[in-house]
Amino acid sequence: MTPGALTDAHVLVTGGAGFLGSTLCESLLASGARVTCVDDESTGSAANVVAAARIPRFRLVIADVSDLDAADARGGHGRIDVLIHLAATASPVHYLRMPVHTLRSGSAGTMRALELAAEDDARFVLASTSEVYGDAEVTPQPEEYWGNVNPIGPRAVYDESKRFSEAATFAFRRSRDLDVGVVRIFNTYGPRMALDDGRVVTTFLAQAWRGEPLTVQGDGSQTRSFCYVDDTVRALVAMATADEPGPVNVGNPHEITMLELAEQVLKATGSHSEVVHVDLPQDDPARRCPDITRAMETLGWKPEVDLEDGLARTAAWVRDQINGAAPPTGPPHRQRSSDQVVRTSPPRPPQDG
Amino acid sequence: MTPGALTDAHVLVTGGAGFLGSTLCESLLASGARVTCVDDESTGSAANVVAAARIPRFRLVIADVSDLDAADARGGHGRIDVLIHLAATASPVHYLRMPVHTLRSGSAGTMRALELAAEDDARFVLASTSEVYGDAEVTPQPEEYWGNVNPIGPRAVYDESKRFSEAATFAFRRSRDLDVGVVRIFNTYGPRMALDDGRVVTTFLAQAWRGEPLTVQGDGSQTRSFCYVDDTVRALVAMATADEPGPVNVGNPHEITMLELAEQVLKATGSHSEVVHVDLPQDDPARRCPDITRAMETLGWKPEVDLEDGLARTAAWVRDQINGAAPPTGPPHRQRSSDQVVRTSPPRPPQDG
Repeated sequence: MTPGALTDAHVLVTGGAGFLGSTLCESLLASGARVTCVDDESTGSAANVVAAARIPRFRLVIADVSDLDAADARGGHGRIDVLIHLAATASPVHYLRMPVHTLRSGSAGTMRALELAAEDDARFVLASTSEVYGDAEVTPQPEEYWGNVNPIGPRAVYDESKRFSEAATFAFRRSRDLDVGVVRIFNTYGPRMALDDGRVVTTFLAQAWRGEPLTVQGDGSQTRSFCYVDDTVRALVAMATADEPGPVNVGNPHEITMLELAEQVLKATGSHSEVVHVDLPQDDPARRCPDITRAMETLGWKPEVDLEDGLARTAAWVRDQINGAAPPTGPPHRQRSSDQVVRTSPPRPPQDG
Repeated sequence: MTPGALTDAHVLVTGGAGFLGSTLCESLLASGARVTCVDDESTGSAANVVAAARIPRFRLVIADVSDLDAADARGGHGRIDVLIHLAATASPVHYLRMPVHTLRSGSAGTMRALELAAEDDARFVLASTSEVYGDAEVTPQPEEYWGNVNPIGPRAVYDESKRFSEAATFAFRRSRDLDVGVVRIFNTYGPRMALDDGRVVTTFLAQAWRGEPLTVQGDGSQTRSFCYVDDTVRALVAMATADEPGPVNVGNPHEITMLELAEQVLKATGSHSEVVHVDLPQDDPARRCPDITRAMETLGWKPEVDLEDGLARTAAWVRDQINGAAPPTGPPHRQRSSDQVVRTSPPRPPQDG
């Protein structure tokens, strides 16, 4: 990325109060950007952006992207220069519980975000996912691979929503000349992940700290590759200013089995938990590993944090959560000026329909 | 189908003024159903339902399904028993010209139709498409095949919208206990197809009648299988009352190359047009042929009209269109009572955005 390219740019991040989004907001602020974070708090939380909200260049808008008003999106920051669309129900526990909500945010939410970007002639970055590859028949997956997704399976509410979002993004590129960049994010982990959403790294870490058995799905021979959140955020920031439509895989090509991950977690935590096997979910991919050649060539990006280091940092955070480390002192909208926090819709509990 | 199962049932057909929809409406009326036809006339036309509108059990609602009001959907017919969702921008010429409209109707339109069906506890039949198989690696395609679709190609606006629609339909089945039936419709042809929308049968027939060269894409070795509209409609009517979620392939397994089709068209029309070759569109599937085992087993359905017969009937219709046969005398809403035609939105020209 050109140094300083984001200085004073207005970057809107949908889903900005989530695990990945909040880390991204902090990085953007550090790059000198003016940041608007939009989140409906269905899975994210304003508590994640308490640190960001101490910086006056940060705005928080509590709203569903699907009906986000342009005036609320712009606010005091004015015209949007870059819109990074992260808002999604990304964890299986959440999207299986809220299938209809997941479909709506994946379709209406993406269409609205694209419309806002087109109105402001902004660059639009879509956070897509390795799930578009489904149960891949080739490993590692290159961007040219069209995927192997079951359109009527339970996971389809997420996978097909993201495939739809990619189709929509390229349709706006073709028909509205929108400047777009699609990244396909592979498994990412790090501090601020929810402990209860079924993602394997935090599930294992929480089980290890609690002295509970580590629940490996199936025989544990299925592989994943885990990218530390700071690495993923660097890729998103690079894509924000790149002249590259993508799609570009973003992930760590270091592939490990779930059994190996369990061992690494036991090592990182010093836990003596045993490993037990539970049923494999339907349509669970057997292997998932990115080919990151394109990311290296077009974004000059590759992951830098190895699993041992990343697990250690995440383990410490999970331990603090379990031990009830003092939570951030209240949501930021109790502390800031009126433009800095905008609530356009009543807060709503995660529910479907 | 149980004889009489649709007698007096209220069947709502979205996209009911299109080529397939209008033929379906007539068949449903013949089965004794009360029919509400919803169409925004973006690609369909009220002229197609002039015959249907002579029957008082028929209602026409000019509206975009995406924001169809429940009261307009029900009207004097009351609670919906079966909702058959056909509304889509199904021909490549249209969906490539209106990509954003195609995405919106494929997502918001389907979600709204599902919601209406769920509110009335109706059976929901989704007209999906063989395009969910994309450039299939197996032929013939069974329903278990997950497809090979390029999510960022120009055709994705249609293909991914339909995959999304299938995911949404099964999500409503799982989470809302909706009674659903998905049919994947392969190429269908017959009277009332638009002559200018790029579909190969009508394109060839119109070229043949006009004495113009028949434009075969690529080398013409790619195959398709063509199902006559009356056969497809019989399958939809059977699915309307079946206890079968699908997906079920509906098509004619008689596979022919495009060169063979051109020859058949010349024979059906007695034309001496020459055959010329033009470029193949991007991501055009090489082979497309349904495995209809499931349709035979679950719906007791198989096609009955062979290509020679169907082409003859379609050829006669195309000839009449080209010769300027008297069009139907005006849209039906000039002739009927106020409840029979409801216009909920201003007519709009086909446009994108």
